[in-house]
Amino acid sequence: MSKRRISIEDIARRAGVSHSTVSRALRDNTLISPKVREEIKQIAKEMNYVPNAIAQSLQNKRTNTIGVVVTSIADPFYAEVVQGIEEVAKSTGLSVLLSASHRDLEQEIAAIDIFHRRRVDGILVTDSRLNKHHTKQLEQIAVPTVFINSQTEDQPEIFHSVEIDDRLGGKLAVEHLIGLGHTSIGYLGVGDRSRSNQQRLEGYRLAMTEASLPQMNDWVAISDEDNVRISDVSTGQKLVSKLVSVGVTGIFCYNDMVAIGALLGCQELGISVPEDLSIVGFDGIALGSYITPPLTTICQPMLEIGSSAMQMLLDLLEEKSVENRVLSPSLVKRGTSAVFRNKYK
Amino acid sequence: MSKRRISIEDIARRAGVSHSTVSRALRDNTLISPKVREEIKQIAKEMNYVPNAIAQSLQNKRTNTIGVVVTSIADPFYAEVVQGIEEVAKSTGLSVLLSASHRDLEQEIAAIDIFHRRRVDGILVTDSRLNKHHTKQLEQIAVPTVFINSQTEDQPEIFHSVEIDDRLGGKLAVEHLIGLGHTSIGYLGVGDRSRSNQQRLEGYRLAMTEASLPQMNDWVAISDEDNVRISDVSTGQKLVSKLVSVGVTGIFCYNDMVAIGALLGCQELGISVPEDLSIVGFDGIALGSYITPPLTTICQPMLEIGSSAMQMLLDLLEEKSVENRVLSPSLVKRGTSAVFRNKYK
Repeated sequence: MSKRRISIEDIARRAGVSHSTVSRALRDNTLISPKVREEIKQIAKEMNYVPNAIAQSLQNKRTNTIGVVVTSIADPFYAEVVQGIEEVAKSTGLSVLLSASHRDLEQEIAAIDIFHRRRVDGILVTDSRLNKHHTKQLEQIAVPTVFINSQTEDQPEIFHSVEIDDRLGGKLAVEHLIGLGHTSIGYLGVGDRSRSNQQRLEGYRLAMTEASLPQMNDWVAISDEDNVRISDVSTGQKLVSKLVSVGVTGIFCYNDMVAIGALLGCQELGISVPEDLSIVGFDGIALGSYITPPLTTICQPMLEIGSSAMQMLLDLLEEKSVENRVLSPSLVKRGTSAVFRNKYK
Repeated sequence: MSKRRISIEDIARRAGVSHSTVSRALRDNTLISPKVREEIKQIAKEMNYVPNAIAQSLQNKRTNTIGVVVTSIADPFYAEVVQGIEEVAKSTGLSVLLSASHRDLEQEIAAIDIFHRRRVDGILVTDSRLNKHHTKQLEQIAVPTVFINSQTEDQPEIFHSVEIDDRLGGKLAVEHLIGLGHTSIGYLGVGDRSRSNQQRLEGYRLAMTEASLPQMNDWVAISDEDNVRISDVSTGQKLVSKLVSVGVTGIFCYNDMVAIGALLGCQELGISVPEDLSIVGFDGIALGSYITPPLTTICQPMLEIGSSAMQMLLDLLEEKSVENRVLSPSLVKRGTSAVFRNKYK
């Protein structure tokens, strides 16, 4: 939770001068006498004023444009998040520019840098790989920035964030399978999204532990961390046979694309879903309801994630204090999960 | 096919001076004597040289950024086209910014305007609604611009284009159904993409005429032009019953999302695909191969469309002459089309 920041207004009130005088003084504008500049800087220092992104944004002329770093335009999950961003942006007359990071730290930094040089008013970053080690580079970002579903545990404190409760989501998915009578439940994850994968897996373990169910190492299959070229669908398609071969009757998949891959894998193996195997996804992308059977999933409020992050950015632009948000996912029961039936009874 | 443009090289060759002398002379750079400037301008005039976007871009400093107007980030077809754009851009060190038009003329113009003000080196516009009436506004775009699958018949001549042969695609789809023995074939289209819808419908009519098959008015169902809020999936889902009720046994759908909607509609109606009804889509998005049964479709070379358009933009930036390109789609036979069987035999 961020404390309320000291604003230029606060300093102006204390110093008994106008907002623009403070703003100019802090920028060393020669319109202000050296003596007054020094006095105002002293007051700002005493008040613990941080000459932050917000203040610098106010100094500059607004461009009424915000930049969004997306993973890829081909990512159906962030497509819906961006829809939520665009709805709020449009209602306030802001234009949205997008740039893709392809889940790669260097491309993410390059995308942020481009927005910065193109003078956007604020930046939203999805699925960020940035952490505290990059604080020095990040301090150069002179505009408000909000992270959406960041992938780093040690997120730089200078930024704000909106994120989903991945642990809760994993727990809900596995509790659903347990509620249907399954006891041998697998997790099919991805290696290149460290934080969300880890937290969804923790949710899985939590639900298993709370239900006093056994947990086997080979019930968890996670794609190779370095092999980011493999699509999520391919990951699901390839790894599902591994889990089936060790006897699981229900699988919680990292996301809907992995779950769709698992379904394709089952078709190839002649495994009926949900008769022989139950599958639960995560995300709630539209595609999940177009497939046969339609996918049971843990739904993220995608539009709300986008609109909350955009609203947070607007608040930051107006120098309002904001609090980081953690949103809750929910179970959407559809056709890929069913009551466990023992084939050998 | 556009005529080959006269380039600065052509003028330089004719005038017997260097490329940069011509470039400077046309920009009235005082490094060149007034006499030489006048002579070169005269030659340029005689050769019908158009001091176009390209020349103006060369005057300015490059930003190594290009802007792409996409329909929406949630459009799986353009997501793959953008992948082709990004591959070429990345290999040449260019960054890609995206902005969404939502298939709306005003938002399209706003997106182009933003790119222009943010000083991109070149612009790619997908699914454009701009036509000759907008020539005056368009002349203000001082950077090379390439249209991808434009929606206007009377495209402004000042721009270049890469497009798919929609008529050929429609013909291939219907010839495939005819080849399977179908004779009562419907077309399920969309009203808000006038040019591509019209041309795919023409391809349908052409194939029916060439096979001497009857054509009925009520075999063609097209969504309301003004009702752009309806998704393509909903269009397919709603209109498929109309076509089935008039006895068609095969349907060519405007695109894959409409076809997926038609499949969902069939599930609701208890119609088996492909046993009772054959369905053919258009586009070849990945999603089509994830559904059950996997979708037979007319595949656009999406990556090639993107990379060709980006290559064209690079050529324009280097003042090379370019020719508009029309790419051919191809049939991908999968599970939603089958040999016609008369149920009443």
